[in-house]
Amino acid sequence: PKEVEPAILAKTIQLVQKLVDVPLCIDSSIIEALEAGLAVYKGKALLNSVTGEDESLDRVLPLVKKYGAAVVAISNDETGISQDINVRFEVAKKIVERAADYGIPACDVVVDPLVMPVGAINTSGRQVMEFVHRLRTELKVNTTCGASNFSFGLPNRNGVNCAFIACAIASGMTSAIINPMHDEVMLGVRGGNLMMGHDPECKNWIKAYRDPAAAPGRGGRTGGRRRSA
Amino acid sequence: PKEVEPAILAKTIQLVQKLVDVPLCIDSSIIEALEAGLAVYKGKALLNSVTGEDESLDRVLPLVKKYGAAVVAISNDETGISQDINVRFEVAKKIVERAADYGIPACDVVVDPLVMPVGAINTSGRQVMEFVHRLRTELKVNTTCGASNFSFGLPNRNGVNCAFIACAIASGMTSAIINPMHDEVMLGVRGGNLMMGHDPECKNWIKAYRDPAAAPGRGGRTGGRRRSA
Repeated sequence: PKEVEPAILAKTIQLVQKLVDVPLCIDSSIIEALEAGLAVYKGKALLNSVTGEDESLDRVLPLVKKYGAAVVAISNDETGISQDINVRFEVAKKIVERAADYGIPACDVVVDPLVMPVGAINTSGRQVMEFVHRLRTELKVNTTCGASNFSFGLPNRNGVNCAFIACAIASGMTSAIINPMHDEVMLGVRGGNLMMGHDPECKNWIKAYRDPAAAPGRGGRTGGRRRSA
Repeated sequence: PKEVEPAILAKTIQLVQKLVDVPLCIDSSIIEALEAGLAVYKGKALLNSVTGEDESLDRVLPLVKKYGAAVVAISNDETGISQDINVRFEVAKKIVERAADYGIPACDVVVDPLVMPVGAINTSGRQVMEFVHRLRTELKVNTTCGASNFSFGLPNRNGVNCAFIACAIASGMTSAIINPMHDEVMLGVRGGNLMMGHDPECKNWIKAYRDPAAAPGRGGRTGGRRRSA
């Protein structure tokens, strides 16, 4: 409930930050909870989220600036989510410009292109790739998405997710909500990074997939996996 | 040897075309063998290959025109294979223009962007994607490549090939030399087609990956595979 969420969120963030050393994304629909979370957060937080609606921009962006956070930007406004990526691009542009008015740099705006299930909208993949490419080259923002939305309703979802995330990275996507415990998804992430030249000397790929039995003295290395070539 | 290859190639094509019903690619470094093969070939052949070298253009393109074939174009010339994709693009453009002089349409020129191993050249993937995009949008040619070149020397080559082929399709690649018996490679092909909207209603994906046990009466369907979602 609205009254207790600020205190609960602040307490939770403090507990989690005592236990793990990774950056967190603070997510609440209650603005007071976002602020309570930011107030206790150590490091640079990612805030979820701001939309192109004026009320959202006016309430969330001052917090982003005050606490030096980054913010996920959802490219919908008062009129909803457009199926036209040109309309969505204009919404994203409005958010970036409003953020700039507050002194928030474009790289701290992390736009979510809103991935639709390909089973419902066959052009969903092309839309995402074109939109991300424009966001990256024209607005110079970072990007994120709920990657598994794309595969909703299809069999072998992790296989779809694998291809989706590889292609999304190749089109310029800089982050995504994924499950890193799924081997096929991580194959897509590592493969996309290979394609983009984001894996110098292919070290991450080799570390993940080299055959530990083939390297003398490394048979027991944690994280090594045996794969057929 | 040069003297007997024309007869051997012609005989082989006739034998193969009696047995299978797929289009063939005729490949020889001996021009007389290419012509002997084309003379007996039924249907529209793909000829491998022509380069940007004048001698190659002058000898191969008349055959392509005479027999209504398509031709693989390798984007190197007398100076070798440039690492600069702008130079390679100019070579491809020269081949397309020379083909047009013979009345061969751009869609019958199938340019090979020459895929380098990412283990040796870290920017190889980006080069391929940028080059293919330009070939597709500016020259409007078809494209092909030796897909597994990309993974040369790395562990889990089929995993690399999976991501490579998905991203290559997403950048506009229209064909590739692959091994369709490798599940991970076919996952990349099918996933890339999903991303590009080339799989209407996702029928190919669903056909390949639906769980036959979940569809009553289809338990024994050939080609169905059980996968965890």
